[in-house]
Amino acid sequence: MNTEAIYHTPYGAYAYTNGSDTMRVRLRTSSRDHLACEVHWNDRCGSPHCLDRITPMTWLSSDGVFTYWEAELYEPHRRLRYAFHIISHENNEHLWYTEDGFSTTQTTERWLSGLFNWPYLYETQCIDVPAWVRDAVFYEIFPERFASGNPANNHPATQHWSGKPEWFSFWGGDLPGITQHLDYLQSLGINALWLTPIFQSPSNHKYDTDDYTKIDPYFGTEEDLQQLLAACHARGMRVVLDAVFNHCGTNFFAWRDVLEHGEASPYVDWFHIHSFPIDRQQPNYRTFDHHGHMPKLHTAHPALQRYLIDAAAKWTRMGVDGWRLDVAGEVDLSLWRAFRRELRAINPQLYIVGEIEHEAARWTQGDLFDGVQHYPVYRAIHHFFTRTTEIPWDGLARPQQWDAATFDHRLGKIRSWYPTPVFSALLTPLSTHDTPRFLTLNQNRRKQQLAATFLLTYTGLPMIYYGEEVGMEGGPDPDCRRPMLWDEQQQDQEMLAYYTRLIALRHRYAALRADGLWTCMAQEQSNVYSYVRGILPVPSTQSAHPEECVLVVLNNDEHPQTITLPLQIASYGPEAIWADGTQLRDELHGQMHQVEHAHITLTLDAYQGAVLVPHSLM
Amino acid sequence: MNTEAIYHTPYGAYAYTNGSDTMRVRLRTSSRDHLACEVHWNDRCGSPHCLDRITPMTWLSSDGVFTYWEAELYEPHRRLRYAFHIISHENNEHLWYTEDGFSTTQTTERWLSGLFNWPYLYETQCIDVPAWVRDAVFYEIFPERFASGNPANNHPATQHWSGKPEWFSFWGGDLPGITQHLDYLQSLGINALWLTPIFQSPSNHKYDTDDYTKIDPYFGTEEDLQQLLAACHARGMRVVLDAVFNHCGTNFFAWRDVLEHGEASPYVDWFHIHSFPIDRQQPNYRTFDHHGHMPKLHTAHPALQRYLIDAAAKWTRMGVDGWRLDVAGEVDLSLWRAFRRELRAINPQLYIVGEIEHEAARWTQGDLFDGVQHYPVYRAIHHFFTRTTEIPWDGLARPQQWDAATFDHRLGKIRSWYPTPVFSALLTPLSTHDTPRFLTLNQNRRKQQLAATFLLTYTGLPMIYYGEEVGMEGGPDPDCRRPMLWDEQQQDQEMLAYYTRLIALRHRYAALRADGLWTCMAQEQSNVYSYVRGILPVPSTQSAHPEECVLVVLNNDEHPQTITLPLQIASYGPEAIWADGTQLRDELHGQMHQVEHAHITLTLDAYQGAVLVPHSLM
Repeated sequence: MNTEAIYHTPYGAYAYTNGSDTMRVRLRTSSRDHLACEVHWNDRCGSPHCLDRITPMTWLSSDGVFTYWEAELYEPHRRLRYAFHIISHENNEHLWYTEDGFSTTQTTERWLSGLFNWPYLYETQCIDVPAWVRDAVFYEIFPERFASGNPANNHPATQHWSGKPEWFSFWGGDLPGITQHLDYLQSLGINALWLTPIFQSPSNHKYDTDDYTKIDPYFGTEEDLQQLLAACHARGMRVVLDAVFNHCGTNFFAWRDVLEHGEASPYVDWFHIHSFPIDRQQPNYRTFDHHGHMPKLHTAHPALQRYLIDAAAKWTRMGVDGWRLDVAGEVDLSLWRAFRRELRAINPQLYIVGEIEHEAARWTQGDLFDGVQHYPVYRAIHHFFTRTTEIPWDGLARPQQWDAATFDHRLGKIRSWYPTPVFSALLTPLSTHDTPRFLTLNQNRRKQQLAATFLLTYTGLPMIYYGEEVGMEGGPDPDCRRPMLWDEQQQDQEMLAYYTRLIALRHRYAALRADGLWTCMAQEQSNVYSYVRGILPVPSTQSAHPEECVLVVLNNDEHPQTITLPLQIASYGPEAIWADGTQLRDELHGQMHQVEHAHITLTLDAYQGAVLVPHSLM
Repeated sequence: MNTEAIYHTPYGAYAYTNGSDTMRVRLRTSSRDHLACEVHWNDRCGSPHCLDRITPMTWLSSDGVFTYWEAELYEPHRRLRYAFHIISHENNEHLWYTEDGFSTTQTTERWLSGLFNWPYLYETQCIDVPAWVRDAVFYEIFPERFASGNPANNHPATQHWSGKPEWFSFWGGDLPGITQHLDYLQSLGINALWLTPIFQSPSNHKYDTDDYTKIDPYFGTEEDLQQLLAACHARGMRVVLDAVFNHCGTNFFAWRDVLEHGEASPYVDWFHIHSFPIDRQQPNYRTFDHHGHMPKLHTAHPALQRYLIDAAAKWTRMGVDGWRLDVAGEVDLSLWRAFRRELRAINPQLYIVGEIEHEAARWTQGDLFDGVQHYPVYRAIHHFFTRTTEIPWDGLARPQQWDAATFDHRLGKIRSWYPTPVFSALLTPLSTHDTPRFLTLNQNRRKQQLAATFLLTYTGLPMIYYGEEVGMEGGPDPDCRRPMLWDEQQQDQEMLAYYTRLIALRHRYAALRADGLWTCMAQEQSNVYSYVRGILPVPSTQSAHPEECVLVVLNNDEHPQTITLPLQIASYGPEAIWADGTQLRDELHGQMHQVEHAHITLTLDAYQGAVLVPHSLM
């Protein structure tokens, strides 16, 4: 047993709670060792001489190097001490793992000290993702480019609705334009919108906010927002706005005051100013990136926090269902903690999602965000489906070959970063307003359909970037922000129909919105990736619920392939997930397939995907 | 290279800051691999194509399985992206380690995504241990048993000043008694006191607080506390009080109100009550441990937090220098975060130390505590010096043989849990009011002297439990709380002189208060433990400052031993720490020793320690 690979810490994704007196613990072991793992535990104020409760751990994921295990422990006293018992059946090796290290014997003395401790289930650290988020399919709207509903509020520089964007282009998109197209979004299956910033700002993207308390006049009025919210809510559709609290625009009143009054301004401490007088050419103050026109806010400052939270509270009271937080990782944690506490008191179902580009375990432990924008999976998607690395800002795609095993291992590793209830709150796109569009990178509509099949059937919260569903193209920012393609003649109607079908499948089958996932096929050099999705079995039992599971198969290859998939999945349990003779229907293309000898065989076209559903679920 | 052993996370002790635009990162590798490690890094908004700053990492500690490395990075933009470059000189193997995993090549593409990120240096997460703490030698006082200064305030059940304590004994100790003995403490070298609780409570220990805003009348008055604080401060002595916020006593006004008015009480939410009517025999409410007479407070409740922080603020304004937080791990993090923010605003040099029995990395990251009571090292001391496991509450010591290597490995592991600036705030005792006294467990005065030599020369904040310095004995609670031995005839004067000498050495040599530590000798089966203490070299340079270092040697054996110590310490640097011919004096016993052939040889008596200081330092 490779003990150097074994890891646990009583924090973060390794020890978390979603309330209800239950606590979940995780363990990491080497993937090379074939193990069974248990937690031995007790109320930490119970008898010091015994850890008399034993809970088997279930497989959570593997990343090719490590395997991750999880167990759920119910303890109404909300305080634990515990040890891990790790068993290698191959050589009958038993290991006990505690805070003190490893031991091959379980003696009474060992339990007197050095156990792992979870001193108390803190209620301010309980993971509490709003229930509606699990069922959401998001749609990102860049309001200046989605639709112009009221020509009277157009920017003076507004162009005809077509063409390629430049940095300072305006097309007149606005809030009424969104309200007028809700039927379209609803028929696509969308039930949640994220609008990039809508508050007063000189730019078309509005990430340089001048007034957090006013709708940008070129986007409309407060009444327009109220009408949009009412129209969405009437359709069961949620609306998430964008909070840009890391920095402000040059006309933000506090920055203007500092520019005018220098050190005498009462707002000096709202910024990070190194010296006076302020030099806007060679900034002597902190900025977003290195942009002098976006001064960084001093987000630990109480008065600034008050101002920003009050502004967000105004819109939350108006009915906003969530906030996407721009550059969230560069903002002091104390602001986000207060933000959550105060806004959740206004709307207990508020969804809070941070823009963090990397592993973000720190922000998803119950006190800060529900989830983050899931860039690591976004990047993995591009490695596997488009065979490029992340697209750098210069827009030059660099080839990167990822086989299905590499893809699966990366996904398994990323799953290990987050508590399981957070999976459903990780907002995942194929493209955004900051990246080239997927189709432009691939020039292959079927590839986009295959990647979308992954997006809508994997764990995480799928998000479609406006126009993706009708085959819009666009290179790096600003080209990826073209005006929405409304001309049905120009829209890719087959793509639209495919997206509509995919989204409907996600809404129909709870298995596709659950946290459970078991890899079925992901071999090196293979271009086939297949996984079972379903209701996560209660940790501590090995029983899954095959009748509530769905099998996804993706042929990420330019040639058709006939694929034979084994239905005995080691990490799922000892038995095949469906018995011989079980009928499965591919809900994307209608074919029926029958389980034979614990296998299923199907032929998939180039870049074709299948979502196989057992008859009992239909 | 065992890659499964390699670990970094951009949180906790692996990535911390003490402000000043510097950020420290740590890396863990296998101790079996002989490596050199570097950080390649940049402003995370710098060019994405290069990590053009390279900082070598320095050895921090080893635990026998893993080696820990650290580097300090100065970045005024306060945001980093970085990768680790790990080099095995043995086989010229180069490995690049990022958030994405391992790579054997450093290509431009690798740096486009998947690096470790430290998005911003949050000012509410900067480690900020008060400067005075590094220089403190603490003394724990159990006020009811230290000295009776004012017989007029004695409890009616007060006994004659001697004898063995029972659970409900009273001896009349009080605050004036402490004030009257400050000369004694000052001559011992003590410059900081921790008083166990002094607020109104029916018990002798007062861990069941009835009124957080009143001094217990049997201990004195507010004026008595003011006089004690003034007398201490006049001597440069600090006073830390005990805050028991996890639970209260049965006469706490809010609990009385709940008992009287049941569900109608406005204080119902200050507790965790499962049902009404309240049953004090079979508690239907949460408690400390399982004690019905100590109801657990609902420490996430804002109004209760307000009450408790206001109470602590009253005493902090009076001049209290710090707070020891009882059962700190079971209290909601939000209370401690507000506690620190508000009380540090009153006294920016306030020392906040939590009682947490286990690894406590979560609480020592700048936003909660400065340090914790260092039970894991306390336990290690007992394993090595008294050869027992932790003393369970039943008082039965169980033999446990630890050799010097095991001791050193455990210490190395514990050091890896905490940011380096936290080391000086980890309050470390040989005994406390909750444990049998060290001498009672050992019945060997020289062993206690040896353990005290370790305590006063190792990293951490040494704390002496009242009377330990004069050889007081006592078994498990309540016996460990006997009245202080003031009769000089009965005091162990040799022990007192030895403690006085040790404390003076700690005050004299900054090396003994620094964070730097390198193991010199700690072999399996050996009863000799030796280490160099000194000014920690600036990470990123390999140069230590031998002229500012001190060598400690402990012969933990019942026989005299002649010991030859090598002065080339791999983790310290390639050269011997002192040149041949350097004269070192044992500051405990006066002998001179000379470095010869990069070694030093000395003979130590049974359980004798030596503190060797180079002539240049004297």
